[in-house]
Amino acid sequence: MNAPSATSPGAELWFTERQTPDLALSLRVVRTLWQETTPYQELLVAETASFGRLLALGGTVQLTERDEFFYHEMLAHVPLAAHRAPRRVLVIGGGDGGTVREVLRHPGIERVDLVEIDAAVVRAGREYFPSLSAALDDPRVRVHVGDGIAFAAAAGAGDYDAVLVDSTDPVGPAVGLFEAPFFRSLARLVGPQGIVVAQSESPLLHGELIAATAHAMAEAFARVSLYLCPVPTYPSGQWSFLVATQGADPSRPRPGASPSGTRYYTPAVHAAAFALPPYAAAHLEGVGR
Amino acid sequence: MNAPSATSPGAELWFTERQTPDLALSLRVVRTLWQETTPYQELLVAETASFGRLLALGGTVQLTERDEFFYHEMLAHVPLAAHRAPRRVLVIGGGDGGTVREVLRHPGIERVDLVEIDAAVVRAGREYFPSLSAALDDPRVRVHVGDGIAFAAAAGAGDYDAVLVDSTDPVGPAVGLFEAPFFRSLARLVGPQGIVVAQSESPLLHGELIAATAHAMAEAFARVSLYLCPVPTYPSGQWSFLVATQGADPSRPRPGASPSGTRYYTPAVHAAAFALPPYAAAHLEGVGR
Repeated sequence: MNAPSATSPGAELWFTERQTPDLALSLRVVRTLWQETTPYQELLVAETASFGRLLALGGTVQLTERDEFFYHEMLAHVPLAAHRAPRRVLVIGGGDGGTVREVLRHPGIERVDLVEIDAAVVRAGREYFPSLSAALDDPRVRVHVGDGIAFAAAAGAGDYDAVLVDSTDPVGPAVGLFEAPFFRSLARLVGPQGIVVAQSESPLLHGELIAATAHAMAEAFARVSLYLCPVPTYPSGQWSFLVATQGADPSRPRPGASPSGTRYYTPAVHAAAFALPPYAAAHLEGVGR
Repeated sequence: MNAPSATSPGAELWFTERQTPDLALSLRVVRTLWQETTPYQELLVAETASFGRLLALGGTVQLTERDEFFYHEMLAHVPLAAHRAPRRVLVIGGGDGGTVREVLRHPGIERVDLVEIDAAVVRAGREYFPSLSAALDDPRVRVHVGDGIAFAAAAGAGDYDAVLVDSTDPVGPAVGLFEAPFFRSLARLVGPQGIVVAQSESPLLHGELIAATAHAMAEAFARVSLYLCPVPTYPSGQWSFLVATQGADPSRPRPGASPSGTRYYTPAVHAAAFALPPYAAAHLEGVGR
């Protein structure tokens, strides 16, 4: 008897994300490993045929094992290499652990707080994505299940050097993570020397969201910049991040800051990610620098 | 009566490219405009719902009006801005005219020869993609329908300053465009000061092809480099180009070389495209610089 398989000869199982009403990406699936309706979203873990394991939330790809390194490296290393000496980091979202794993590559890190609203995401990470979630067992890390907006509002001024917003798309509970009151909280948390980064969707497909989010950030920060990287399984294959400081230039990594073991990030890639093509730079018009 | 539509309420028409056996990209289609079996390939022109018109050859996306600028700008402007004074350019493939359109943005250009093997591609371009094919009516441009490998073998030494290889995927008639004898022809055509660029597929999915093509180029050129750009409707959403010279650094645009009217290319984007992430740089191991 053969090993159990989700499909018979002549049949195939595919995960298809309708990324926009007119654009879809499909990954062939060997078998689904877990499906659950959490209090917040539909959660799916599947073994794909050639992208490793897949985590989808609300029907959208959060990560595949094959291409998660683009996103997690660029979300973590750009702000942490730009900051002069990051020690205390807050990660909002990212319950799978991928962002925390990258944060811990920086030797000066003393403490990481992770705030994930959906306990099921943390459970799925621990069960099915050990290469990401193992980071959550590091003694410097504390995992909080709760609302990131409330957590940020309650934390103390200057409690963190960097905040990384590893959110889902701006629907449901994530909407507030793209708005000005939240960024004002974060500005208070990181103080005048701190740095904040937020994933900000596709520069090709979501230009209006990038513009609105940049304006919201600019209400709380003196300097808001955009940088880009590829993420093959995200809509359009290209992604963006907004990074905010009270004046420091986020595009220049400090000497010696390069984390080891990366597959996408280097100091040269860091600087290059800020070389914006005109079509993407247009999203930041009127935001200052 | 409503306007004719390819679909009824409740039905949708989709173009789906199986980019690998396990990965597919789908674009919603309003109607197909032209389908033809040419002597070389299946040709499809369709009106998509939000990516403008689509040209597919052999079932693979060649361009959509919405995202063709990434590819055509980076194929043309990197070599032409890096060369010290390009006047005569050979484009192999690219019968749609998009690459020639970008070449003509450089004011010093005196002559462009385009060699397209499939006359149907040129016809489809002229009929359905005027924003690309209008460039082919420029008096500096000559369109040759024929085999690019034979054309290059027959052309004279030093006839061109730059050759841009705008090929389809390496199957069928395009296979030879990725091999050493062809690159030796091109080295002869451009001479010691010339520059050659070839599209070289996805750095995530086609690393072995990039490595093999780079080695083939290195048999004829002293310096072979790789650069990257996003192309949302191509497999993995990220694409690569191999560029070859007899020593000149292709990563630095000459001052004042920047073409006007671009949406992706700038001199800073040019330099940034050569900042390779480690996973992509690995494809060039053993090729020298």
